[in-house]
Amino acid sequence: MSVLGLDCGGSGSRWVVLDTDGDPLARGTGPPLAGHLFEAAARQSAIDALRTLCADIRASGATIDAVVAGITGLSATGPEAGAVAAMLAAGVGAAPERVTVVNDIAIAYRAAFPDSPGILVYAGTGSVALHVAADGRESRAGGHGCMIDDAGSGFAIGQQALRWLMREADRAGNLPSGALAEALLARVGGRDWLAIRAYAYADSRRHIGLLALAVAEAAAAGDPVAKDILRDAGEALAALARALETRVGTQPVALSGRAAALHPLIFETFAKFLAPACPRRLELDPAEAAARMALTAAAG
Amino acid sequence: MSVLGLDCGGSGSRWVVLDTDGDPLARGTGPPLAGHLFEAAARQSAIDALRTLCADIRASGATIDAVVAGITGLSATGPEAGAVAAMLAAGVGAAPERVTVVNDIAIAYRAAFPDSPGILVYAGTGSVALHVAADGRESRAGGHGCMIDDAGSGFAIGQQALRWLMREADRAGNLPSGALAEALLARVGGRDWLAIRAYAYADSRRHIGLLALAVAEAAAAGDPVAKDILRDAGEALAALARALETRVGTQPVALSGRAAALHPLIFETFAKFLAPACPRRLELDPAEAAARMALTAAAG
Repeated sequence: MSVLGLDCGGSGSRWVVLDTDGDPLARGTGPPLAGHLFEAAARQSAIDALRTLCADIRASGATIDAVVAGITGLSATGPEAGAVAAMLAAGVGAAPERVTVVNDIAIAYRAAFPDSPGILVYAGTGSVALHVAADGRESRAGGHGCMIDDAGSGFAIGQQALRWLMREADRAGNLPSGALAEALLARVGGRDWLAIRAYAYADSRRHIGLLALAVAEAAAAGDPVAKDILRDAGEALAALARALETRVGTQPVALSGRAAALHPLIFETFAKFLAPACPRRLELDPAEAAARMALTAAAG
Repeated sequence: MSVLGLDCGGSGSRWVVLDTDGDPLARGTGPPLAGHLFEAAARQSAIDALRTLCADIRASGATIDAVVAGITGLSATGPEAGAVAAMLAAGVGAAPERVTVVNDIAIAYRAAFPDSPGILVYAGTGSVALHVAADGRESRAGGHGCMIDDAGSGFAIGQQALRWLMREADRAGNLPSGALAEALLARVGGRDWLAIRAYAYADSRRHIGLLALAVAEAAAAGDPVAKDILRDAGEALAALARALETRVGTQPVALSGRAAALHPLIFETFAKFLAPACPRRLELDPAEAAARMALTAAAG
């Protein structure tokens, strides 16, 4: 017997197959997959991503008995979750009743606070904070998407960097030099406004979110603007936790998600703005956390 | 003989027909029309908007001999300008060689600085600053669109208000009260996150830009948050002028566009941040400015 855990987000997907002892049998990455199924193009892209993931998982040769998948932007009680679960069951050959599809944040929350409540701040392409009370009642802050806010997210980090780049260019009449500009332009794949515009406006949410990787590279090389952008992100993520604290009181706080793991400055700043609340960084791989949930469910 | 001036933007279109004496024969408004023709849906919506506008103009009974149209987001030298010009010529029955389609900012610039150079800051759904040197060379600042910046624009004003609304809701657990919240929710047409999300994520650029009207209403009613948002917009628009000044030197500065005209606080703040540069507000109706350009061209 083996179980599958999936962690699907706006910048990419990860999966892991564990055996009954909890040891990894196979791992892989795949295309981005988000539950933002408002429009036909996004829906088709999600279906294509699921097909690719299932084909790769089948190619690993593992027999999948149970699945837990966390998918960004998707409500566990919405119709999309049922549709994705049915596709996953068919795609990896598992019984439909042993496939669970939830929001990716739900997985991270369970991994961070398996027994008692807390506040999880989660920063991927988007950003959100979640508290689940002892009675199961959920409270959220953030999670309003890139057109409204998503402060501290990969999208916000990439957008702030792109804004800095263009404002510098506006003042000087040409693009700035330095580590941050070079890292951004390398990801954009061009060195003029037409290339930047084409990059940013095709698949905006994902492409701008991916620029957060360039900001992290530049910060690692010592770029002061890149460092400031990451500090701003840490502060914005702390503000999400503080917003929830005004409603649910002081709680243990955990920070998770790929954007939060970009560079140590994010967690350092986050912790500084939450000094008395004992924040901790969550190092657990969400795909593995999902697989462990599947293992527990299958054993229970 | 009569001439047509059109001013087409992301939140709506205006047109005016003038007789040879420059007196208005007919005026009208129409659906939004932007030159952001990257994708099929936007292109179809632009074609539909043009058809509606042409039908209304024909219904006015005027015989159109010359046309000047300013369309947001469109390059005068790009293929879209030619396509729109051909449709307009056929739609209103003018000779194709007497139809000129340019960017809406070009019209505002000509209206503000007919004889000698200056800096025009233009705030509609987006924001941009333009300087045209005596030798015809153009310099721009801003104009990078809502996914990157557009500070001081109608979109930025609406987005800042929406962000305030949701951050307040995150802290309190429910939507805030007061003039700004009420004005925003009235435009959204609902009072919960699902309604706000549906409003903001369907036709984001235009819908969020329209919320600037709610901010202006709330500021007129004395709401302090709404006033701060409009002051921020005025400061951001001044920063666009200052960015250009670092490249082209101090110039006469004019502020124009529908977002700039939302509330006196925008111009007041703009002027304060540009104290020595003699900024002035441009009151001219851009559709009428376009029509006057058509009249001059037709007479010349």
